[in-house]
Amino acid sequence: MMANVLRAAIVGSTGYGGVELIRLLQHHPQVEITSVISSSSAGTPITDGFPHLHTIVTDDLDAVDIPLIQSKADIVFLATPSGVSVKLVPQFVDAGLKVIDLSGDYRLKSAEAYKTWYKHDPAEEHYLQQAVYGLAEIYGDKVNGQPFISNPGCYPTAALLALWPAVKQGWLDPASLIIDAKSGVSGAGRGLGLNVHYSEINENFRPYKINKHQHIPEIEQVLSDAAGKPVSVTFTTQLVPMTRGIMTTCYGVQSEERTDEDWVRMYEEYYAGRKFVRIRPAGQWPATKEVAGSNYCDIGFAADARTGRITIFAVIDNVVKGAAGQAIQNLNLMMGWDETLGLQMSPVYP
Amino acid sequence: MMANVLRAAIVGSTGYGGVELIRLLQHHPQVEITSVISSSSAGTPITDGFPHLHTIVTDDLDAVDIPLIQSKADIVFLATPSGVSVKLVPQFVDAGLKVIDLSGDYRLKSAEAYKTWYKHDPAEEHYLQQAVYGLAEIYGDKVNGQPFISNPGCYPTAALLALWPAVKQGWLDPASLIIDAKSGVSGAGRGLGLNVHYSEINENFRPYKINKHQHIPEIEQVLSDAAGKPVSVTFTTQLVPMTRGIMTTCYGVQSEERTDEDWVRMYEEYYAGRKFVRIRPAGQWPATKEVAGSNYCDIGFAADARTGRITIFAVIDNVVKGAAGQAIQNLNLMMGWDETLGLQMSPVYP
Amino acid sequence: MMANVLRAAIVGSTGYGGVELIRLLQHHPQVEITSVISSSSAGTPITDGFPHLHTIVTDDLDAVDIPLIQSKADIVFLATPSGVSVKLVPQFVDAGLKVIDLSGDYRLKSAEAYKTWYKHDPAEEHYLQQAVYGLAEIYGDKVNGQPFISNPGCYPTAALLALWPAVKQGWLDPASLIIDAKSGVSGAGRGLGLNVHYSEINENFRPYKINKHQHIPEIEQVLSDAAGKPVSVTFTTQLVPMTRGIMTTCYGVQSEERTDEDWVRMYEEYYAGRKFVRIRPAGQWPATKEVAGSNYCDIGFAADARTGRITIFAVIDNVVKGAAGQAIQNLNLMMGWDETLGLQMSPVYP
Amino acid sequence: MMANVLRAAIVGSTGYGGVELIRLLQHHPQVEITSVISSSSAGTPITDGFPHLHTIVTDDLDAVDIPLIQSKADIVFLATPSGVSVKLVPQFVDAGLKVIDLSGDYRLKSAEAYKTWYKHDPAEEHYLQQAVYGLAEIYGDKVNGQPFISNPGCYPTAALLALWPAVKQGWLDPASLIIDAKSGVSGAGRGLGLNVHYSEINENFRPYKINKHQHIPEIEQVLSDAAGKPVSVTFTTQLVPMTRGIMTTCYGVQSEERTDEDWVRMYEEYYAGRKFVRIRPAGQWPATKEVAGSNYCDIGFAADARTGRITIFAVIDNVVKGAAGQAIQNLNLMMGWDETLGLQMSPVYP
Repeated sequence: MMANVLRAAIVGSTGYGGVELIRLLQHHPQVEITSVISSSSAGTPITDGFPHLHTIVTDDLDAVDIPLIQSKADIVFLATPSGVSVKLVPQFVDAGLKVIDLSGDYRLKSAEAYKTWYKHDPAEEHYLQQAVYGLAEIYGDKVNGQPFISNPGCYPTAALLALWPAVKQGWLDPASLIIDAKSGVSGAGRGLGLNVHYSEINENFRPYKINKHQHIPEIEQVLSDAAGKPVSVTFTTQLVPMTRGIMTTCYGVQSEERTDEDWVRMYEEYYAGRKFVRIRPAGQWPATKEVAGSNYCDIGFAADARTGRITIFAVIDNVVKGAAGQAIQNLNLMMGWDETLGLQMSPVYP
Repeated sequence: MMANVLRAAIVGSTGYGGVELIRLLQHHPQVEITSVISSSSAGTPITDGFPHLHTIVTDDLDAVDIPLIQSKADIVFLATPSGVSVKLVPQFVDAGLKVIDLSGDYRLKSAEAYKTWYKHDPAEEHYLQQAVYGLAEIYGDKVNGQPFISNPGCYPTAALLALWPAVKQGWLDPASLIIDAKSGVSGAGRGLGLNVHYSEINENFRPYKINKHQHIPEIEQVLSDAAGKPVSVTFTTQLVPMTRGIMTTCYGVQSEERTDEDWVRMYEEYYAGRKFVRIRPAGQWPATKEVAGSNYCDIGFAADARTGRITIFAVIDNVVKGAAGQAIQNLNLMMGWDETLGLQMSPVYP
Repeated sequence: MMANVLRAAIVGSTGYGGVELIRLLQHHPQVEITSVISSSSAGTPITDGFPHLHTIVTDDLDAVDIPLIQSKADIVFLATPSGVSVKLVPQFVDAGLKVIDLSGDYRLKSAEAYKTWYKHDPAEEHYLQQAVYGLAEIYGDKVNGQPFISNPGCYPTAALLALWPAVKQGWLDPASLIIDAKSGVSGAGRGLGLNVHYSEINENFRPYKINKHQHIPEIEQVLSDAAGKPVSVTFTTQLVPMTRGIMTTCYGVQSEERTDEDWVRMYEEYYAGRKFVRIRPAGQWPATKEVAGSNYCDIGFAADARTGRITIFAVIDNVVKGAAGQAIQNLNLMMGWDETLGLQMSPVYP
Repeated sequence: MMANVLRAAIVGSTGYGGVELIRLLQHHPQVEITSVISSSSAGTPITDGFPHLHTIVTDDLDAVDIPLIQSKADIVFLATPSGVSVKLVPQFVDAGLKVIDLSGDYRLKSAEAYKTWYKHDPAEEHYLQQAVYGLAEIYGDKVNGQPFISNPGCYPTAALLALWPAVKQGWLDPASLIIDAKSGVSGAGRGLGLNVHYSEINENFRPYKINKHQHIPEIEQVLSDAAGKPVSVTFTTQLVPMTRGIMTTCYGVQSEERTDEDWVRMYEEYYAGRKFVRIRPAGQWPATKEVAGSNYCDIGFAADARTGRITIFAVIDNVVKGAAGQAIQNLNLMMGWDETLGLQMSPVYP
């Protein structure tokens, strides 16, 4: 163990979010992973399920054992399915551990919304209100110094970084918003199902959970904050035959006619100094592969004088900026470190 | 040569549209392919470029030789790039041959629009006006008995079959239409370029030609016909890492609140008897693979009471219903045959 | 029901083999599908699991009910997992139904081998010996007039069509045979598992069951027949990130030096008149996509004077020639029909 | 510019090898990239061709200008096509620059072999003999302190790491070697051609250059060194529909019967201390994705008592360990640094 480093435990280490946290935290100069945890596979080597970690992670998986984790770690990342964090997070918080929760269980402030959209009981009100929603480029200031962060969803990260400045500045009509979102298959996790069966998904483009996705209230909660009034959006979720990447294609009616150059300039100013948001030059739109493996969110614009609409494209790697990468960015903000620590990797191309 | 069959020549046999015409026409009971034509590769076996046709097509490619074609064929299919048909089609028409043109050169009625959207000179007005736009399920009656058909574009086929009944019946506001379209890579043809380079496209989702695609005026021309007044749409083109398939996700504001069941019922009635349009039950949305290799266009609905919008999904195989298959359907309609002749194949799944 | 057609029942209609039998038999001029059967999903529409069959197959799935099947069908295709056919086939055979079994349960003549390689009890000796192994181009004569055919495995079909003439003619040393085989993921079926999980398989090339695959004894049984003495082979199974297709790359030591042209000539003569085996010209090797969706097996050669070895490449579509297509070919041979009936479709390219 | 760092120039920065060098060198603690060079695109931003580098590499591309490079750099990496390095390398060497050449132009010691296999004139004998062949785990000692390294080919890296210990130790018959190799498409580079056209390659498995690949003499040169006598191999090259990754499946006759455990133990000892070679436990074989994005070469074994053969699987990321990563490893060895500097990244999974 290194001196003066933060000791991190990762719960849910047998899922894609957990295993990506391992990949990224290994290169974080201020963090040491001291426990990789899995309730289902405790006591076995993580390489049984993830042979790519052969010689890299040689410890066995730990169980979810609060006193043990307290003794080994300063911070806990939960890369657990929704519903599990409802029960686990309070135990870690009460044990005085710092917590970054990657599940959706603490993102919404409305307990009622959990019943409607998540179809399970919400976390206790006390913890729900305590969680700081860590959309880093928007709410980063609120994250600083906080012990308990709720990490944003993958789709909301892309959609909100694409839309927040426009809604905040009043450049488009918030009643007109349509978000056509596409995701790689890793977003569905490692669980088994026909929806992730290779022969069913390969060479296929498929809509799912239309108008029912649990990320809808999360997006609306934040956009309502930007607009200063309730906002409803049409949000469409579709699966792309690729492993990583999210594209959100966002449509809105412009409040007045503007050019691509106007949009680029405003966004560049809005996100000035935020290294992970890259605004593309006018006439250039990002593709998902151009951020693969990295923590970038790239944004491009197409204003249309014919229809008065603006189309905003935003891409992220769903496993990095949409999950593990942003969680580490939140760790950095929480600790008052440079937000890019451990996250400076370039996109892997091709 | 069989007696009483129609003799067909295919110009552009070294492209994907041409080679798909070969695949499909071989099983057409009333047609015999008598000439496969390529200006660039005349005199060589087609199997040089397409070894999958080994033992299936054994003749060499013919040149574009009007008298030769006149002597060998009754009908000419042109699966040529835009700009080429401008010059070739008049020669075939004047030679008294039946013509089905798969390029975009005769789809628009406005010569001006060609300069704006296609960036080349339009065909002569005489031929432009003579061409019948063969969107089979909509304009099929007009195709019957005609000698010269312009086959619709791939994107317009999906988008228009999805939207026509809704616009025609006044179920949505034509000023609100947004079409978020996604295509497999075969739609870009067999020509070389970084835009079809495997390592650039694989594991990538990419927008292109935003607000500038030449299919925009084609879609607007037909929807304006449906609405009885000029219609402008936002139309977004994006490349999916798969070979075949188009998904058009269409958004509009409902003129009044309706349920998925209402939409399903209306479309089923509208397309009653048209075997190639399949309306999915309420709550089910089509995926591109579910029509792969077939001439089907599958349509599904998601009405949203929260936002007042309707989302309409339509999928086709871009090479079949979006090109060669619909061309054969137009041949059937032109000749007064059953529109399904030679096209009854099921989707290839998985 | 048409007059004078053979009535077919398909057991295992919810797997890929069963659903491909449906696709192909619909275009067979002498066959009508009268029952699609699934023990697990009886009483529900097949379109619940396979929406691509919407409007194409509208009947509910039948249960495995022998008297019912006897009343509805003349022949039964079993596209069932290994182990299931052990129990079902005798019931159908005893009921006087014709049977084509696509599982591996009746391919080996040695009951002992089932315990070693399949890890389950063999079928009763009586039925094991009665089954005719239907490798169509090799044993087609034995299929004619027989009531009970065991359809070859996917890998063996490609490997054996590649190697049989060479071994039979003594052109290579049977002790030197190595078969490096690669398969698309559909070969693993529709069952769930990490081995078919999209995010695990996509962008991945993976060996599995090395030296333990149950197709090894099947290949050796047939090659021993060709050689007239026991033959052992090294056979390697690997998964390719694609849905359909098998490539077998076969290596052997030539008995004397020969050229590619020699090999092509010998194989062309050997397979003369067998439409589904296509020998490629010298210097050209087949790729899997060039037979996709079709019943072809394409074979190419690379003789190497430097090493004295011959490399033989053979490709098939594992779901067609490797399963459903060859089953129909066997039906044709069984009935004394032209072996290509219902199978004349060209490869789907691209 | 940092003090005490090595200044690196990259020639061929618009290819995949060059762009991967940029990705990896950015995280190298002892290196600064001071010039990215392209003869074809000099004077334009690299982001024109590689938008994923937006905000990461902001300089324009330099021309190949020896005095300029001399003033800006200490070492030159050449990620240029074969034939180009023949002419460029001598200029850099004569200018006193350190050189690591990733092309094949300096790998073979026999000038004659270049004419036979590369079909172009060899480099001058003087430079050919001066180049040290940098197969890091085998010839690393020879690299130390040398100014001019020839970086191994992608296929040879995997094949040789798989076979060297076995041949060196006499555990298999060098006359029996067959290497069935499979590569992702990025190995073919960024140039245009039908062989890298998405619609032609996707869902396809394709052999190419059989018995003619220019990596054959490279493999034989090294294996002959290991065996102490001339070795010829059968080497098969095949394209897999994925972007990154090479699998070499190697076959040989064992000199005496051994178990998987024997093989694992011997290789573990042979490669002890070499972090980038990972020997898999008995019964486990590596898949390409398990090394993606990393500098690892993973090796697994399947000894077969039935046939007396051993099958050895080795996987690498062709762009990393097969090109840019090994080049940096060679830089580290050349400079006497820890060979893992800048290369400690874990595989990207999934």
